[in-house]
Amino acid sequence: MNENRSLRVALLGAGSVGSQVARLLLERADTYEVRVGARLELVGIGVRNLDAPRDVDLPKDLLTSDIDALVDGSDVVVELMGGIDPARALVLRSLERGVDVVTANKALVAAHGPELRAAASASGAMLLYEAAVGGAIPIIRPLDASLAGDRVMRVMGIVNGTTNYILDKMHREGATLDEALRVATELGYAEADPTADIEGFDAASKATILASLAFHTEVPVASVHREGITGVTAETVAQAEKDDQVIKLLAICERVFADDGSESVNARVYPALVAKDHPLAAVHEAKNAIFIEAEAAGDLMFYGAGAGGVETASAVLGDLVSLSRRRVAGGQALHPGVSAHLPVAPMSAVVTRYQVTIDVKDQPGVMARIAGKFGEHGVSMESLEQRISDEGIATLVVGTHQARESLVQTVLEQLRQHDDVVEVRSFIRAEAV
Amino acid sequence: MNENRSLRVALLGAGSVGSQVARLLLERADTYEVRVGARLELVGIGVRNLDAPRDVDLPKDLLTSDIDALVDGSDVVVELMGGIDPARALVLRSLERGVDVVTANKALVAAHGPELRAAASASGAMLLYEAAVGGAIPIIRPLDASLAGDRVMRVMGIVNGTTNYILDKMHREGATLDEALRVATELGYAEADPTADIEGFDAASKATILASLAFHTEVPVASVHREGITGVTAETVAQAEKDDQVIKLLAICERVFADDGSESVNARVYPALVAKDHPLAAVHEAKNAIFIEAEAAGDLMFYGAGAGGVETASAVLGDLVSLSRRRVAGGQALHPGVSAHLPVAPMSAVVTRYQVTIDVKDQPGVMARIAGKFGEHGVSMESLEQRISDEGIATLVVGTHQARESLVQTVLEQLRQHDDVVEVRSFIRAEAV
Repeated sequence: MNENRSLRVALLGAGSVGSQVARLLLERADTYEVRVGARLELVGIGVRNLDAPRDVDLPKDLLTSDIDALVDGSDVVVELMGGIDPARALVLRSLERGVDVVTANKALVAAHGPELRAAASASGAMLLYEAAVGGAIPIIRPLDASLAGDRVMRVMGIVNGTTNYILDKMHREGATLDEALRVATELGYAEADPTADIEGFDAASKATILASLAFHTEVPVASVHREGITGVTAETVAQAEKDDQVIKLLAICERVFADDGSESVNARVYPALVAKDHPLAAVHEAKNAIFIEAEAAGDLMFYGAGAGGVETASAVLGDLVSLSRRRVAGGQALHPGVSAHLPVAPMSAVVTRYQVTIDVKDQPGVMARIAGKFGEHGVSMESLEQRISDEGIATLVVGTHQARESLVQTVLEQLRQHDDVVEVRSFIRAEAV
Repeated sequence: MNENRSLRVALLGAGSVGSQVARLLLERADTYEVRVGARLELVGIGVRNLDAPRDVDLPKDLLTSDIDALVDGSDVVVELMGGIDPARALVLRSLERGVDVVTANKALVAAHGPELRAAASASGAMLLYEAAVGGAIPIIRPLDASLAGDRVMRVMGIVNGTTNYILDKMHREGATLDEALRVATELGYAEADPTADIEGFDAASKATILASLAFHTEVPVASVHREGITGVTAETVAQAEKDDQVIKLLAICERVFADDGSESVNARVYPALVAKDHPLAAVHEAKNAIFIEAEAAGDLMFYGAGAGGVETASAVLGDLVSLSRRRVAGGQALHPGVSAHLPVAPMSAVVTRYQVTIDVKDQPGVMARIAGKFGEHGVSMESLEQRISDEGIATLVVGTHQARESLVQTVLEQLRQHDDVVEVRSFIRAEAV
């Protein structure tokens, strides 16, 4: 901090979030000065293209394309460029120099969290990223600090607004995936290339961040089992509705216990069945929510806007003001610990419930034979129902009790080759039913 | 901190929360040591009666009735005695000596927050009280830190589990208040003397704490307008159900704007109508939830267990671990700022919506005359409905648009003396419809 008690803030990126952060930093400068005890002076906004159109009118003299110079002349860097390069190098260099960093970059934190935290720890710089998961929803700080004395057993998050919007529309209007995606794109909820959202990459990044905080263990993003929503059909949705369930794309992080009792952690992303009376089922449109099961606290849920320029700016500015208050008060940065070093369990070790829809040849004894396949592999069935029968084909819906993924996959593999089976039509996990 | 890196923790109180905190501190000592970087050593548990029955078997040698000596020999005090005396003196003395304090005592923080924060600031001690509002739900830290860069416009909280249990039962089972209270008492949700809960004193303490954090302004508990649930009848509940609404006891903190645009803040507690599709309506049983409207973040909600020994212990231990991590890392305590010093608006200045049920003499022109009374005082009606007519008495239900409380009270006063009016049967505010 310089002598007249101000902190030089460099903002990198002036997209939908960055332009709102810049606007609010300028508009609320006096308020922040009182809250922090030092002025947050926006010294520049680093952009690739000085003349690109912006959501907000920003003072021209703050815009600069010389990002290196901007970063090197600052006390705090707010990185809102997104993507790995050049964000990673800029953030790393800042942290190594002892410059505090706020970022909303989930891909960066998910892929390079350990490296960034190590650089911050070495120099005493702070690194905060509340906006990286759940947009405006406070979730990083509650997990890291409020639940610091508890043992988190499971986190289930609706952490991608685009896919929640699409699935919600399929449920509420009976739309197909393609129709819902088209509307989401028109309304700006989905990007021109929606791959990161609908294939679950975005949610997987967030899952790895949530898991590292919940379990004090690094969970590499490469270890996150990921299935997107492209396999969700109007038929699956209709069937869920009939069962008073909804399909949500969930980022799930949980402790997994092997048969010998040994503990590991798992993070995964897939569409799953959620009972309509579960709090997560009431998360509509592009909203996000994170549901936490902790040993002492019980069930908690955090709900709000998971995206949006001004909403996400709230989380970024919360980090910036908090970090600046700490800078003024003195004292080392606290970083989320990864003290537990639990092993990461593969998807095959996960235990959950399943719903499998199978077309079989409508012959005497077929239900018993299909049921037998599940029993043979120790997968206990909760329900077996014949839904439709048409031209010699019967559609069976099997619901299982808790079962280990590896066993269920073995059953599925054998069913696909089974004489009675025409097709395994769909397969979905039931997480909150 | 002493040389072998341990923090001497004194626990005051071994009731339902205290005994769980003690148990977890002992059971999780190794985990906490890794998370904190120092051992949290429970040096004693101060109790009034050494032989009182406890929820949890605690080591006898930790129990002591010499609370003064216990406090004076500690690095951190965890105050879970409740009530003002002797908690206030013990907490104050600790903070003055630079000893950090964690408390779950909402009455103490609400009544003496400024004094306690001043003592902490003067000595550099930390004072944390996450468990004082919303039990296990992280809400203090999100308001103080995560939303530090935002402008909170309104907080609406279901912060008392007992009254939520009672109202929920009235709605879901058609029970009367007395019946629901009796069951709540049998199940341990209500205390033998339920006054603090059902008259809204508990919620009012929490409102003052929430308001001070949300608006960076001291809002004395004496300024919190408070109405309990004793006036909620089965008839009001049934009428709400018909309108797809539920009645919730809400702690509301909001910015109030006078006609000249000047800003003040208000905190209040009363039963209010909530639309069934509002997230707060889905908060059942004894659960708590805090709904926040912030300028940039939009709507946020925090949901979970608002009471319970082990649940509340989670929040206490989160504070204890966080505070200890900060103690190990060094650096001054950060205290929620009260930098805004906004004036506190009286209830009469509040603007909200109202529903008034009036029995009138069933005569020609009566509806027009009643409607005229509202219009005369500038209270705009949204709906006017005749619900029942029996033996010359008609029951009218008036819904208003946003109106200032003082004007509505004037209308009510005049209606009570009006020739057409038999009785103003009920009056309830509509906060989230």
